[in-house]
Amino acid sequence: MWTVYLSGEIHTDWRDQIKAGAKELGLEIEFTSANTDHDSSDAAGDHLGAEDKAFWRDHKSAKVNAMRIKNLIEQADFAVIRFGDKYKQWNAAFDAGYCAALDVPYITLHDESIIHPLKEVDAAAMAWAQTPQQVVETLRYITQA
Amino acid sequence: MWTVYLSGEIHTDWRDQIKAGAKELGLEIEFTSANTDHDSSDAAGDHLGAEDKAFWRDHKSAKVNAMRIKNLIEQADFAVIRFGDKYKQWNAAFDAGYCAALDVPYITLHDESIIHPLKEVDAAAMAWAQTPQQVVETLRYITQA
Amino acid sequence: MWTVYLSGEIHTDWRDQIKAGAKELGLEIEFTSANTDHDSSDAAGDHLGAEDKAFWRDHKSAKVNAMRIKNLIEQADFAVIRFGDKYKQWNAAFDAGYCAALDVPYITLHDESIIHPLKEVDAAAMAWAQTPQQVVETLRYITQA
Amino acid sequence: MWTVYLSGEIHTDWRDQIKAGAKELGLEIEFTSANTDHDSSDAAGDHLGAEDKAFWRDHKSAKVNAMRIKNLIEQADFAVIRFGDKYKQWNAAFDAGYCAALDVPYITLHDESIIHPLKEVDAAAMAWAQTPQQVVETLRYITQA
Amino acid sequence: MWTVYLSGEIHTDWRDQIKAGAKELGLEIEFTSANTDHDSSDAAGDHLGAEDKAFWRDHKSAKVNAMRIKNLIEQADFAVIRFGDKYKQWNAAFDAGYCAALDVPYITLHDESIIHPLKEVDAAAMAWAQTPQQVVETLRYITQA
Amino acid sequence: MWTVYLSGEIHTDWRDQIKAGAKELGLEIEFTSANTDHDSSDAAGDHLGAEDKAFWRDHKSAKVNAMRIKNLIEQADFAVIRFGDKYKQWNAAFDAGYCAALDVPYITLHDESIIHPLKEVDAAAMAWAQTPQQVVETLRYITQA
Amino acid sequence: MWTVYLSGEIHTDWRDQIKAGAKELGLEIEFTSANTDHDSSDAAGDHLGAEDKAFWRDHKSAKVNAMRIKNLIEQADFAVIRFGDKYKQWNAAFDAGYCAALDVPYITLHDESIIHPLKEVDAAAMAWAQTPQQVVETLRYITQA
Amino acid sequence: MWTVYLSGEIHTDWRDQIKAGAKELGLEIEFTSANTDHDSSDAAGDHLGAEDKAFWRDHKSAKVNAMRIKNLIEQADFAVIRFGDKYKQWNAAFDAGYCAALDVPYITLHDESIIHPLKEVDAAAMAWAQTPQQVVETLRYITQA
Repeated sequence: MWTVYLSGEIHTDWRDQIKAGAKELGLEIEFTSANTDHDSSDAAGDHLGAEDKAFWRDHKSAKVNAMRIKNLIEQADFAVIRFGDKYKQWNAAFDAGYCAALDVPYITLHDESIIHPLKEVDAAAMAWAQTPQQVVETLRYITQA
Repeated sequence: MWTVYLSGEIHTDWRDQIKAGAKELGLEIEFTSANTDHDSSDAAGDHLGAEDKAFWRDHKSAKVNAMRIKNLIEQADFAVIRFGDKYKQWNAAFDAGYCAALDVPYITLHDESIIHPLKEVDAAAMAWAQTPQQVVETLRYITQA
Repeated sequence: MWTVYLSGEIHTDWRDQIKAGAKELGLEIEFTSANTDHDSSDAAGDHLGAEDKAFWRDHKSAKVNAMRIKNLIEQADFAVIRFGDKYKQWNAAFDAGYCAALDVPYITLHDESIIHPLKEVDAAAMAWAQTPQQVVETLRYITQA
Repeated sequence: MWTVYLSGEIHTDWRDQIKAGAKELGLEIEFTSANTDHDSSDAAGDHLGAEDKAFWRDHKSAKVNAMRIKNLIEQADFAVIRFGDKYKQWNAAFDAGYCAALDVPYITLHDESIIHPLKEVDAAAMAWAQTPQQVVETLRYITQA
Repeated sequence: MWTVYLSGEIHTDWRDQIKAGAKELGLEIEFTSANTDHDSSDAAGDHLGAEDKAFWRDHKSAKVNAMRIKNLIEQADFAVIRFGDKYKQWNAAFDAGYCAALDVPYITLHDESIIHPLKEVDAAAMAWAQTPQQVVETLRYITQA
Repeated sequence: MWTVYLSGEIHTDWRDQIKAGAKELGLEIEFTSANTDHDSSDAAGDHLGAEDKAFWRDHKSAKVNAMRIKNLIEQADFAVIRFGDKYKQWNAAFDAGYCAALDVPYITLHDESIIHPLKEVDAAAMAWAQTPQQVVETLRYITQA
Repeated sequence: MWTVYLSGEIHTDWRDQIKAGAKELGLEIEFTSANTDHDSSDAAGDHLGAEDKAFWRDHKSAKVNAMRIKNLIEQADFAVIRFGDKYKQWNAAFDAGYCAALDVPYITLHDESIIHPLKEVDAAAMAWAQTPQQVVETLRYITQA
Repeated sequence: MWTVYLSGEIHTDWRDQIKAGAKELGLEIEFTSANTDHDSSDAAGDHLGAEDKAFWRDHKSAKVNAMRIKNLIEQADFAVIRFGDKYKQWNAAFDAGYCAALDVPYITLHDESIIHPLKEVDAAAMAWAQTPQQVVETLRYITQA
């Protein structure tokens, strides 16, 4: 049984495509990820008390999310990190740096159009995929070789 | 003597402002950073042979740069990571994640306008500064307290 | 399945409230803790021979307890550290420092009245809760997100 | 040359006594410590912007202080941790736990009256001293043996 | 249950001999290894896009393989590293160095004729076997003693 | 379920007494140890080829044994290290040093007569027991508290 | 000041070329390496007593050499690993694996003709150079950027 | 400059012989060791208060000594561990285990008569010397190769 952490973009269905592809092939993989619901993720710390400043509301929520993310990344055999065409996605790049420092190997998943700004992230990656199907094939190979 | 790694934006003079401020105060700090010249950074691997594909040219250059960056981050007592208003700056977020995983404390330096997309990066930071002057004051306090 | 270490105050029923709340929500969490019986904890080393000096009796018992505590903290995905209004509770702050150095994320649980003396402990925490119910909600979010 | 971190109580002159004693004996020891000025320590983060809530003001200051403390503890060959008769001193116990987890050996310095609440902290210590003079003698022995 | 990583030569049936021998003795050992099919191993990265240069094709495939190898070596209780009489086998020596640095104990399996060029690899090994049968006997002893 | 490594003396039945005592109390503990048969332990490497010199025969056997010991110590929650009145028992003291450096807590088990030569080993121990019954009681306390 | 470990081939003057090139450019680099004299390296353990078997003579010498190599690799900021066209050079590949596991970045230096057998070694490298001049240019860039 | 820790026997002049030999050859080595004066070592903790029980007097002194030993071993490039023909010398074997777990390479120095009881200690050593002169020659080789 392998564990794969899926990090990054939450506005397309890439996670579902990978999970479906892995299921179809019968791969023994447990997929994990952060909370992928944007609104509830932003509100992760709200139950700990209201904040007037946006900075502290974000701070509290990000730290609650981090307790989940940190554990799941450290337990992962490797990660897939997805960069889409919207938003800043600094959290995805942060996860990549975190994986790199912990020696958790990761695959990046992104279009050709953003090769240049992602060069540092890709340089520390073990593979670059352009489609979820390529990721699935990579997972099949790694876990069944 | 303290060592501080300066990561991120290379298109404004924030590094110079911090160095000048620290010098004026007589702080015993050695500042380090990646190559901050955009063109020569992109060409860091060119002497190792030409590449047809943009991906591999970037890959080679990013890895040559990483040999420098990795060593300097690991030798730093802490880091300052700057996010500006241009470009993707995924390398800065990557450095932040790398620092976080290695327990190298870091200060972020950015405007209020990008609090939300930087919430994960700020949540793992030890301080958020909005101006180079605030960074200098933080450095003064930490190294002279 | 997640593992959560519960550290600190042993004179109120906060552990039971958290366990009951987690059970009610069906959370898959194993809770661990040091021996919470004050008298038997103080006597943990007595079977190894009597001591005339209070220091050595305490020393022996604390070390026997530490064999349990150290293992459970290191196995925990995160910890909850409770500070009440009685006693010195230096062992709770010690556990917090131990968690911080090992990168085991922790949540503090304490009243607003002791924010100031706990500032270093809270600064290294991932969340501050004021009630067991807030802890339960945090656990629900982290483990089910 | 040895490096010794002095942690804890800031309201008596125990640090000065130890430094004077070491100097008199010509010991080659560099002593380090957190900012020991109570007011400026509490205000360490004020230059990063005002806060309405006590919690966040403390939080910011404690994190700025932590950047100094973390580096100095990790660079120390060992630490002396002092518990006095005032205040909660949870930061001292936190430092002790931090040292213990990082295998930085430490000596506690406290009166006999607080043996019991400090049993966990003492159990992980390498020595318990009751006077600064005993600490100086221990330093002499360790660094000159 | 023990886990043993089998590294090196893929052109003889030494892995099968060891597995069969362990099975016959009823040893509770899970054997792992890289993809041992030469052609598919060389093609491990082909599904991520064609490359004109041999260097990059090899690079991509080797990195995909490394995601598997790295995880399996780190999970192994110990390794067996086989050197045959064909090919350069630098990957086997690389695995040996990787094991040595991570303190994963390993047994080498090779003929007497290559003692001299393997002296560094053997010096860091825990045993040198000349036949698969000797490896099986070593496994029996270690796991059943 | 806890795992306890039993190291040291192989000429009395202290292991059996501890196992029996733990079983009687229904403790959920898995006990592990090196090969405790003196002759087969000395011959652990013989199947790898005969040696003329005593040094190399011992060397080969000790390394084969070390593959087992290293894994079991690293997997242990804590260890019990027994010193009897016969032989040099340097391997037991070696195991103690190994545990100390890896932060695997250990209990020593020995008579009062050898307190002085064992002072360094005891100083790094978490408890000193004089009888197997005291060890059993310590195990009961740690694993059931 | 940077430290660079030079590993591998000892039969050509690549080390001298790199040192000369670095000196000419005034680079602040300390170069280290194993003993590069073949005969004295093979005899490194001879003063510890004669051996009848080639295996043990090699074993003793390789271990004496390893005390030097291990320390120098761990102290290096990065390494250059050279593969020539003679001998097995398993020690060079072993050093590469050792560096990879310790996160010491390395540059490989070899001809195009051995790309394929070196694919695993190159996949973990930060750069591949074909000439000592390219290595010098890489060193200049990394240390002066 | 290399640092070598000298551990073990304090009743013969082996340390002086090694230091003199290294000096004669002009080796750049700093030698360190525990307090080698038996009586003052046993009394290392006496200034911290008298003890009635031999166990606690030894305990306190051993821990004070350990603060010195731990630091010096961790700073050493390698160690020499001497076993003589008197006393139990469990502290020397303990130091060997400590070095082994921390990957500090060590040379053992002992007569042929105690090969068998030292087999585990020798199996983890990088060299076995029978005379101080052999140690000096080894030091010369390692530090000047």
